[in-house]
Amino acid sequence: MIYITRRERFNAAHRLFREDFTDAKNLEVFGKCSNPNWHGHNYELYITVKGIINKQTGFLVNLKRLSKMIRMHVIDKLDHKNINLEVEFMQGKLASTENLAVGIWHELEPFIHELDTELHCVKVVESENNHVEFYGN
Amino acid sequence: MIYITRRERFNAAHRLFREDFTDAKNLEVFGKCSNPNWHGHNYELYITVKGIINKQTGFLVNLKRLSKMIRMHVIDKLDHKNINLEVEFMQGKLASTENLAVGIWHELEPFIHELDTELHCVKVVESENNHVEFYGN
Amino acid sequence: MIYITRRERFNAAHRLFREDFTDAKNLEVFGKCSNPNWHGHNYELYITVKGIINKQTGFLVNLKRLSKMIRMHVIDKLDHKNINLEVEFMQGKLASTENLAVGIWHELEPFIHELDTELHCVKVVESENNHVEFYGN
Amino acid sequence: MIYITRRERFNAAHRLFREDFTDAKNLEVFGKCSNPNWHGHNYELYITVKGIINKQTGFLVNLKRLSKMIRMHVIDKLDHKNINLEVEFMQGKLASTENLAVGIWHELEPFIHELDTELHCVKVVESENNHVEFYGN
Amino acid sequence: MIYITRRERFNAAHRLFREDFTDAKNLEVFGKCSNPNWHGHNYELYITVKGIINKQTGFLVNLKRLSKMIRMHVIDKLDHKNINLEVEFMQGKLASTENLAVGIWHELEPFIHELDTELHCVKVVESENNHVEFYGN
Amino acid sequence: MIYITRRERFNAAHRLFREDFTDAKNLEVFGKCSNPNWHGHNYELYITVKGIINKQTGFLVNLKRLSKMIRMHVIDKLDHKNINLEVEFMQGKLASTENLAVGIWHELEPFIHELDTELHCVKVVESENNHVEFYGN
Repeated sequence: MIYITRRERFNAAHRLFREDFTDAKNLEVFGKCSNPNWHGHNYELYITVKGIINKQTGFLVNLKRLSKMIRMHVIDKLDHKNINLEVEFMQGKLASTENLAVGIWHELEPFIHELDTELHCVKVVESENNHVEFYGN
Repeated sequence: MIYITRRERFNAAHRLFREDFTDAKNLEVFGKCSNPNWHGHNYELYITVKGIINKQTGFLVNLKRLSKMIRMHVIDKLDHKNINLEVEFMQGKLASTENLAVGIWHELEPFIHELDTELHCVKVVESENNHVEFYGN
Repeated sequence: MIYITRRERFNAAHRLFREDFTDAKNLEVFGKCSNPNWHGHNYELYITVKGIINKQTGFLVNLKRLSKMIRMHVIDKLDHKNINLEVEFMQGKLASTENLAVGIWHELEPFIHELDTELHCVKVVESENNHVEFYGN
Repeated sequence: MIYITRRERFNAAHRLFREDFTDAKNLEVFGKCSNPNWHGHNYELYITVKGIINKQTGFLVNLKRLSKMIRMHVIDKLDHKNINLEVEFMQGKLASTENLAVGIWHELEPFIHELDTELHCVKVVESENNHVEFYGN
Repeated sequence: MIYITRRERFNAAHRLFREDFTDAKNLEVFGKCSNPNWHGHNYELYITVKGIINKQTGFLVNLKRLSKMIRMHVIDKLDHKNINLEVEFMQGKLASTENLAVGIWHELEPFIHELDTELHCVKVVESENNHVEFYGN
Repeated sequence: MIYITRRERFNAAHRLFREDFTDAKNLEVFGKCSNPNWHGHNYELYITVKGIINKQTGFLVNLKRLSKMIRMHVIDKLDHKNINLEVEFMQGKLASTENLAVGIWHELEPFIHELDTELHCVKVVESENNHVEFYGN
């Protein structure tokens, strides 16, 4: 069993808030992240897949194909977007890094099998000081 | 003459567009950066000041005071904000990294003299692939 | 189950040596790290906690509160300190990165439950070439 | 149980191809990496070992000795070399990062026990966007 | 006057040697870098241009166009190539980082004017420990 | 004229204080950095030299020789040392990053000419947030 990780990046705007909270309550719970005019991040995404090395190619997975798949199913939906307003898989959810990692897992996981490999970890880095990891359950 | 550089960081949303352009024209000129729903970045700011080492302290400048000054005059105005809508010194200007660097220079420069030093460079890093430097003229 | 990691930093002096060793023996076992006049590092600390996402907030844990807790129980005791002389939880132990990681775990773990989450990993980075991880047992 | 990681680096040339493939087929499967004139990388190698802290030294392992062992058994065989032509433990294998990680494990593992510790992970970073991890099975 | 820098990357193989030197002499002067079977690097290229901010766009230069230009005139000629054998603008020159920086300047400079800006610096990073800068004279 | 930069690293302890100040005054001026029991840093040192490319070698300077020279005249005096107590060229000076950069210049500059090149810049990085540059006057 070998693990390979591909990094991709996206820039997005978001806001942490609940519609059923007052502005004051949102500020108390979410701090500056609740700013109604949005703020944003350079997100880094690390996708780790695992499996057996293909004897024919020496690869676990063709990284070009993995990268293309991540871009099609994840990056194109998030890059230069507003996570609250424009990202379908985040609708009805708080735009936290935690929910983002779980959402990205569910967008990507059904397609990873086409590469004869298995999704192991979705890691989302929001800043040099914070990151989230999700292993699927 | 010695140069000392302090790094600070801010996260913000922005959009590149002109009101007098159609959406199609904005897309053509500014690409994905013109998204009407905003996107955002983790910006890094490097402020370099220069001058003579103070014999009493061994410092060019007290970095705590420099950091506090940068936060008061620059970071607090930008962090977790929408650059187009909420940053006074960027009003009426395109929210490009170039204009941001020039704007930050003009916000900070009048106060740097209180530290008996001189502003040398404002460097704004928008992503690992792009950064801008402004030396005041 | 989701994992979130917070990075904090501290600068400290230390020395690796045993009082029951001669200087020559200390030099043999601990090399330059046994210098009686101390040396020091910029340490990076990565604290990973795990648990279930809170549906109300979209968070596993409020990162402001986690950061505050790490600073109160760990960083304030280590930052700009001499690990051998001034850090209570390291008394009677060799000031190695390994012992530091274990010591930090025991300082922090009893309080992490207040955040309705569980401590998963303490990672201490001593330099770009060396780091230690401790998972609690 | 504690985990300690040592980073070492090597620069090498390589090529991904199969002798039983035509050039066109190699290009199709391996892309630019099949260039017959070679290309190369700055590889980063992270070796993680695990075990019990030695009470006498406060160490899991003497990092100088670990570093020396990695250099002798791995780095000296790879650094400033052509992986396809000059690295004995890679003969008859595709020079992929996956095979490199597995090969390094088998070169290093028999010697790690001399340090009274156990090999946990071999991580090979080929670029800022790609890395591979192998845990021994 | 404002300065903007774009980073691009390429992976390449090379060898430092003189045909008029014996192997022993090459080894003496160029060390491990003279290995006849090549070695390689992940190179980072930082291109800095300077000029006046365009009032219409807020840009010094459209970074998409700058990036495309660097790729066409520099990266496509170097990436996944053997610098000694396959890079036309390096023929007859030693494949040192110094000569590479000068060569890249001359490949790129004639085209930079199309972007109404001026080439300021070519910086080539060969490893985390070494980099070269060339300012055109 | 070409510029080449070599990075070296050292770990050291230091303390910022004046003997003619009271402890309270030292704390006021130098903050936590005045801790009588020392603290420390992982310092990064970037040495930039400039000159003409040697046609015979393609080098501005042999980096092995430059590295060796920096180690002999600078790193060996600072690494795993106490800057206040053990570094001769810092005696009688405040152990600030500014004074360190100037001191390193004067230690190194007389020898750089042996390499047929000229010292251009000494850059000392004390932490990811602070660094100092000295150009010799």
